Amino acid sequence: MKVVLVGAGNLATNLAVALQQSGHTILQVFSRTRQSAELLAERIGSSAVTALNQLSQEADIYIISITDAALSSFDYTAFPTHSLVVHTAGSIPMDVIPMERRGVFYPMQTFSRQRIVDFSQIPIFIEAATEEDTQFLTDFALTINNKVYRLSSADRLYLHLAAVYCSNFVNHCYAMSEEILRQHNIPFSVMLPLVDEVAAKVHQVSPREAQTGPAIRHDENVIRHHLSLLEDQPRLQEIYEILSKHIANDKL
Amino acid sequence: MKVVLVGAGNLATNLAVALQQSGHTILQVFSRTRQSAELLAERIGSSAVTALNQLSQEADIYIISITDAALSSFDYTAFPTHSLVVHTAGSIPMDVIPMERRGVFYPMQTFSRQRIVDFSQIPIFIEAATEEDTQFLTDFALTINNKVYRLSSADRLYLHLAAVYCSNFVNHCYAMSEEILRQHNIPFSVMLPLVDEVAAKVHQVSPREAQTGPAIRHDENVIRHHLSLLEDQPRLQEIYEILSKHIANDKL
Repeated sequence: MKVVLVGAGNLATNLAVALQQSGHTILQVFSRTRQSAELLAERIGSSAVTALNQLSQEADIYIISITDAALSSFDYTAFPTHSLVVHTAGSIPMDVIPMERRGVFYPMQTFSRQRIVDFSQIPIFIEAATEEDTQFLTDFALTINNKVYRLSSADRLYLHLAAVYCSNFVNHCYAMSEEILRQHNIPFSVMLPLVDEVAAKVHQVSPREAQTGPAIRHDENVIRHHLSLLEDQPRLQEIYEILSKHIANDKL
Repeated sequence: MKVVLVGAGNLATNLAVALQQSGHTILQVFSRTRQSAELLAERIGSSAVTALNQLSQEADIYIISITDAALSSFDYTAFPTHSLVVHTAGSIPMDVIPMERRGVFYPMQTFSRQRIVDFSQIPIFIEAATEEDTQFLTDFALTINNKVYRLSSADRLYLHLAAVYCSNFVNHCYAMSEEILRQHNIPFSVMLPLVDEVAAKVHQVSPREAQTGPAIRHDENVIRHHLSLLEDQPRLQEIYEILSKHIANDKL
């Protein structure tokens, strides 16, 4: 397929590399920031554009990977009227795109420009306004990997919300752990085998069944002791208390 | 070394397998629950005992892996007076053991009987009452792997506390995510690539620097929207709100 990418951020960069590896042609990379557009275009041997009136009218699909806020205020008149335009955002409804042929192509992963991830492992959630375009998007996504799911805008919202718990909140737990260790001159690297095992376990066991620790054991002695160790750190103490309470209740 | 294991739970089971693979001899497995003692003893070709007066007096080291509460009320007179007795608990001081030759051998990991983990990747934190026994324990631990650290009881408390954030609280975040997905008939398995990437990232980048998501971006629109999606689930909503506030403040 001939693709035009709008955006040159973390997701766009990872997607561009994956699309190219799957044999697609990236006609252009658009970004208002010349440096970003050129950096990505160079990386994949495409051409950079920074003005919407320079957009190629020849693409089979236009993929917009920009911030949620920018999606709402984007000038969609830049696209050819009958072309398929999709965005890649988890939390924005498909209908933010005012085109007749609109859709969503949401690869659920956390992306950095510095870390090119293995796209073959990333589930892709798609949606389109017509059955024909849904099929088109499905086939397109299947050229990248075989983890392609159809999902409505309404359910995608909840998927994105669930992803916040699994990624952003999990990472913050790591960060709190790191902070406690730092105060005792212990490097965070000692935690990595534990981090890996906790992640590996939920490949086999449901998270709810995998729960261990003082809270699920109702070990009030350890919990009280831990809270007392955090006396000078009310923020960490607050999180400890509330998460332990929820784990102990085992009601979500 | 000749080893007697007191306890036959998750940690004892994993440790027994690792000790045997490192060439040590497990003389006995003690547990008050006959079935547990026999199950583990059989697994490693050792003998099961259920009464303390049957404990071998010949071991070079006695390793106690029982619950924190049981450690406090244990009858330590069962051990030979001049033998080295250690426990494996993260949150209990070494001095709970009233022996002259006492110590701690704390392998920091989350253990299940059903999942034998690779002990070569698990950091082992050791402590003993004398320099001689500290060296003995170090050498002993080094037969299992090369991630051996000396750590005082005081610092081990904080290490254990930090581990609660990295494992129990992380797992609870997975569980909350699973619950949201369940309500929308989406299997938790779609989250696994994200789970793996979030864990993999902190091998390279400090958790604090790795933080992504609406809270660190101060994206109030998404946060408000997510909170409204959780209106009927006050527990999940409370956690979302408090973790987002902490991430946004970026103060721990």
